[in-house]
Amino acid sequence: MKNAPSDVLVHHVYFWLHEPDSPDAREQMQRALEELSTIETIRYAHLGVPAATESRDVVDHSYTYSLMLFFDSKEDQDSYQIDSQHLQFVEENQHLWERVIVYDSVKW
Amino acid sequence: MKNAPSDVLVHHVYFWLHEPDSPDAREQMQRALEELSTIETIRYAHLGVPAATESRDVVDHSYTYSLMLFFDSKEDQDSYQIDSQHLQFVEENQHLWERVIVYDSVKW
Repeated sequence: MKNAPSDVLVHHVYFWLHEPDSPDAREQMQRALEELSTIETIRYAHLGVPAATESRDVVDHSYTYSLMLFFDSKEDQDSYQIDSQHLQFVEENQHLWERVIVYDSVKW
Repeated sequence: MKNAPSDVLVHHVYFWLHEPDSPDAREQMQRALEELSTIETIRYAHLGVPAATESRDVVDHSYTYSLMLFFDSKEDQDSYQIDSQHLQFVEENQHLWERVIVYDSVKW
């Protein structure tokens, strides 16, 4: 991983579910995220939940799911946004979340 | 990267500088982040700025710097928090930022 390219576009999405303690909602969301992360242009995917790190003022442990994707380029991220599989993911699962934040980063 | 481990702890920090347009502040912060990312326990580091992706309600392009680190374990992240080089980074540069958010994620 030390040799991983630094010129990727990091697309990091945090989801807050309406019912973060509902087993049904969690199962649907996890399955959907796993399927979503198979889209071809995704170079690397990390699907996660809040880690049990120390509670500090600056650390936000309140989200339900983290989806972190690496793309080779802005163009690949753009095409992912309109990929039919991605649109279907949003369509079928957006009722599950009450809030989403996305941060896109590239090397300066 | 497709083969990268999924069991890493992803530590993602977003910084909002007081003076995001100040060349001096930016130079100091970028140099400091580059030095910070050499700490031994860091498995992978991505240092970034907001990507020029589409403006959408859910995308936050307002931060100044992104620091994303992979650790092999919670223990490595914990030791990083108290690493003297990390403490020195905070001490010497915290006057530059007005806001920080940290998200720590692990595979569910």
